[in-house]
Amino acid sequence: MQTPQQLAELYEQFYQQNSFNYDPNGLYEPVRHIMNIQGKRIRPMLLLMACDMFDGNLNEALHPAFAMEVFHNFTLVHDDVMDNADIRRGVPTVHKKYGLNEAILAGDVMLSYGYKYLLNISEKHLKNSLNLFTKTAIEIFEGQQLDLDFEKRLDVTVDEYLKMIEFKTSVLLAASLQTGALIAGAGAEDQKKLYEFGLNLGLSFQIKDDWLDTFGEGEKVGKKIGGDIIQNKKTFLLITALNDANEEQRKELSALFQEKDETKKVAGVMQLFAALNISQKTESRIDELYEKSLNSLRSVNLPDEKKKPLLALAEKIHNRDY
Amino acid sequence: MQTPQQLAELYEQFYQQNSFNYDPNGLYEPVRHIMNIQGKRIRPMLLLMACDMFDGNLNEALHPAFAMEVFHNFTLVHDDVMDNADIRRGVPTVHKKYGLNEAILAGDVMLSYGYKYLLNISEKHLKNSLNLFTKTAIEIFEGQQLDLDFEKRLDVTVDEYLKMIEFKTSVLLAASLQTGALIAGAGAEDQKKLYEFGLNLGLSFQIKDDWLDTFGEGEKVGKKIGGDIIQNKKTFLLITALNDANEEQRKELSALFQEKDETKKVAGVMQLFAALNISQKTESRIDELYEKSLNSLRSVNLPDEKKKPLLALAEKIHNRDY
Repeated sequence: MQTPQQLAELYEQFYQQNSFNYDPNGLYEPVRHIMNIQGKRIRPMLLLMACDMFDGNLNEALHPAFAMEVFHNFTLVHDDVMDNADIRRGVPTVHKKYGLNEAILAGDVMLSYGYKYLLNISEKHLKNSLNLFTKTAIEIFEGQQLDLDFEKRLDVTVDEYLKMIEFKTSVLLAASLQTGALIAGAGAEDQKKLYEFGLNLGLSFQIKDDWLDTFGEGEKVGKKIGGDIIQNKKTFLLITALNDANEEQRKELSALFQEKDETKKVAGVMQLFAALNISQKTESRIDELYEKSLNSLRSVNLPDEKKKPLLALAEKIHNRDY
Repeated sequence: MQTPQQLAELYEQFYQQNSFNYDPNGLYEPVRHIMNIQGKRIRPMLLLMACDMFDGNLNEALHPAFAMEVFHNFTLVHDDVMDNADIRRGVPTVHKKYGLNEAILAGDVMLSYGYKYLLNISEKHLKNSLNLFTKTAIEIFEGQQLDLDFEKRLDVTVDEYLKMIEFKTSVLLAASLQTGALIAGAGAEDQKKLYEFGLNLGLSFQIKDDWLDTFGEGEKVGKKIGGDIIQNKKTFLLITALNDANEEQRKELSALFQEKDETKKVAGVMQLFAALNISQKTESRIDELYEKSLNSLRSVNLPDEKKKPLLALAEKIHNRDY
């Protein structure tokens, strides 16, 4: 087995060799722009670790690992257009820098390159991998639509919210893990357990993201605390608050949605969150989902030793304070 | 072998049974909107005919045939955004009716559904079909980028223009034909010939489109004659004119690009087209490409009888005056 550091180096090499230096430049420069924004590379790492865990061929796994990152970056390009976001990780978003048409087209071609890289999987596992990838892509678009729909609603339930983040975020983590196991020849049962591990880890990850935006320490999170509150974003926190509030508190929340003074708004919402115990409720949901994800990983039919790298990564994701 | 009418009915049935009645409605209503705009269904028909020609399984072929149409419609949705087009075949475009975000997301999910339908191809032919489809998709996006690039240039050569329409239009017709032959088990040589047939038929088709916009009969074409001229669109006609013009004529053309009086503009450009023999030059290029396409079809290693439906369709496309 390889150490996470070795896997990261292997991936880095592949990444450097696949840098989208193609013509026409007007199409591929925006692709290089988003691909060069260094993310955490969680998806490719999950795929490689899952593959290595079952002693799979890592040189084969690099292609789908890269496919997952290309696909994920494509969704960021189109999501940034839909969210009208100007900045991502400190640099201009693709549509801000290159224009709307370029962002649409760069995203489209990246989705196709995702498939192109996936098509390097050995023929034996091709159909299953592509079915999983295509199902996942469709779910992600459905999740994005739910997210857009929720913006206009005040009655979103916690279950609806969980479904949305499952589709929008978790399924790609889950599919990355399953694909790694699949191409390594793991059995269907173990593939499913790794998928479940990723699904619940992803949910816990996303809810922690929500929690950090309001209760994290600003300088560590790297963005202004309370941004979600200012934007009236339908996070796990706000949805739980809206569901648990009594009539008076709900009226207060609705009034705060219109509040123009940001400091007053954040303070007001946080006061209500405190009264409703939102921080603790959220933390216990995060822990519960995290525990659930670990149980899936633990039940994979392999010696504990093999599960250590994924366990360590899950812990790192869970314990982050940024 | 089936008659074209029988193939069309078979396809119609499949189309009716695959109507994107899924949730969330906000995502799939725009998909149904564009899928319900009845096009000529050239791509699925080409695929089915090519498959039937080699005695392939038509029930299998329906899936990739539908995939080609879903993919084509996806490109229309995103292209309409990029071209800022309000109307398609007399109804509002997706972004006009549902908004920009919905058009982007509907397109994305349609691209994935293209793959989903393709994945029903038997495993034996899956990898080759998907490689062809993915290569084709990437070329189409590159073609769209070239088209956007050409808008800003006055020095586009005829060869560059042909490359652009090859990528933007022809490769999908060619890939539809090849996919039909491929899944029917045709040899590589015959597949290639059908691809070439589609490629040149597509080029001839697109240049005829250009010709009809300026020299066609308005009521038959169904749009105002001279629309391309008014928009300074880089058509085969204009590019040939710019290439063949002397210095004085080129100056005249450049001046006409700025002309605000549409009647004066169309008349002025058409006078220059007449002086430069553009109509005849274009027609001979259309004929030349059409003949080239027929030669590829004729050289397919099958009895003439088998080629009749595709030959008849090519003729119909070539002789159309709308």
